[in-house]
Amino acid sequence: MTIGPIAFAGSGLDRADQIRADADRLAALMDWRARLLMLDGLDPVFDVDGALAWGSLADADPDAELVFLGLAQNKACFAAVSPTLLGSVAPANPRLWAAMSSLGHEELATYGTARSLIDWHARHRYCARCGNPTMLAKGGWQRNCTNEVCKAEHFPRVDPVTIMLVEHDGRLLLGRQPRFPPRRLSTLAGFVEPGESIEEAVAREVLEEAGVSVGKVSYVGSQPWPFPSSLMIGCHAEALDDALTIDRTELEEADWFSRDEVAAAMRGDDDARFIAPPPQAIAHHLLKWWLAR
Amino acid sequence: MTIGPIAFAGSGLDRADQIRADADRLAALMDWRARLLMLDGLDPVFDVDGALAWGSLADADPDAELVFLGLAQNKACFAAVSPTLLGSVAPANPRLWAAMSSLGHEELATYGTARSLIDWHARHRYCARCGNPTMLAKGGWQRNCTNEVCKAEHFPRVDPVTIMLVEHDGRLLLGRQPRFPPRRLSTLAGFVEPGESIEEAVAREVLEEAGVSVGKVSYVGSQPWPFPSSLMIGCHAEALDDALTIDRTELEEADWFSRDEVAAAMRGDDDARFIAPPPQAIAHHLLKWWLAR
Repeated sequence: MTIGPIAFAGSGLDRADQIRADADRLAALMDWRARLLMLDGLDPVFDVDGALAWGSLADADPDAELVFLGLAQNKACFAAVSPTLLGSVAPANPRLWAAMSSLGHEELATYGTARSLIDWHARHRYCARCGNPTMLAKGGWQRNCTNEVCKAEHFPRVDPVTIMLVEHDGRLLLGRQPRFPPRRLSTLAGFVEPGESIEEAVAREVLEEAGVSVGKVSYVGSQPWPFPSSLMIGCHAEALDDALTIDRTELEEADWFSRDEVAAAMRGDDDARFIAPPPQAIAHHLLKWWLAR
Repeated sequence: MTIGPIAFAGSGLDRADQIRADADRLAALMDWRARLLMLDGLDPVFDVDGALAWGSLADADPDAELVFLGLAQNKACFAAVSPTLLGSVAPANPRLWAAMSSLGHEELATYGTARSLIDWHARHRYCARCGNPTMLAKGGWQRNCTNEVCKAEHFPRVDPVTIMLVEHDGRLLLGRQPRFPPRRLSTLAGFVEPGESIEEAVAREVLEEAGVSVGKVSYVGSQPWPFPSSLMIGCHAEALDDALTIDRTELEEADWFSRDEVAAAMRGDDDARFIAPPPQAIAHHLLKWWLAR
């Protein structure tokens, strides 16, 4: 059993990577027919039908860098890295969540891809190796150092994160990060570090955050998460016991929840023990998957 | 069914992440009892028993930065970022592969973690956001910008890569990258890009490189790969047909192979159609998994 369609995955764009490296073809696509994803800072802009708004390249700031997102119905789609965005880190905000809930999967995925790429360009103006300025290359899927001695190539980051259903005796371990809204609980999660497999990252995170050792770890599903550019890797882990030692720097609280308690929260019952994660999050789909199997 | 123990995973080190952020505890660990992983450039050094050689912090270059790898038998283990390594990118070489084949899984994993981290520090001396120098923080699991206005925090990269068994009618799709040794074939692979799930990345790579559309994609297993810091995500994909359109910029050749042909290559038969990937690579384990199921 796998998780169903999930927010930020399933873009209808053809990434057409063969065009990225072909400077002539790319230049030929950057004409009046090209479409520009309209953005307000890093937030989406909607047309009269509530869909993502698209303009033409003429709508971009003349000093903006242009990122080639791909082809849609044979039209080249771009996003602009405006000078006003440079250096900024814009976290997701309530207004953005409300706006995004009106978009379908395909559009959310296109927006998420653009958001991750623009954010990366805005925060990677200099070469990490030598400190000199970098310039956009390959349609925005690379930045190159402008220092002729260095010439380092840099690629957009994708940060793998494990997020896990930890189960013991039919109950699920859920926790609360300090930044969560009131009463919200979710599955534990953490970045994969250099030198560990997905399964090892799951085991380490659960031990670090909750003091629980796990045995078998199974993969469930994945999701791109554009804040700023994570790859969420959803897993199921069998806990070896249920004694908790909570790391209070990571979690405000954590506890075990029965199937009925999780079902009540997912239904949004008034007397549920907690508020479930929102439908855009893979945690929501992991809970649904767990209840259904 | 899962893949068995795999090279570069399974380190016996306790990463002890609670120590990283505790400057006093970390400083207290950096005394004569601490162990330093001995390296020749980025390559491993062996002791008389053929195990990884460890020295003391006195063996490090006085100008080196020290990375806290974790605890082993309550001893703090470090690796040094020597000034001679700065800016370098050292690819794996045949001498390194020979040396590594003598190490057990735990030691290879410890070496791989150190290699990824040192390589990252060596190539990330400057702030990508503002161009100013960065300095090591949190025991080497972070670098901070030294510019008081910027103060950006940077984290070691882990680049997720999909690598896949593509199957059609009982046969497997294998290909040859130009950099491979003669007659070597392997599974297709490619980096996950911003805005796509693991399953989407698999489908895109197979379509790009071989012109083959895939249906169901399943996860098989994962491996950290320290050249320089990939997370290999092994999958199985069901091809919808077997007509190939090979992208010659990515692959020199690609073809379908029967179970018997794959088995002969894995046994190392002289008359096998190809030479199988080496046992350190997840591709080897994926082929073994496919033959066994």
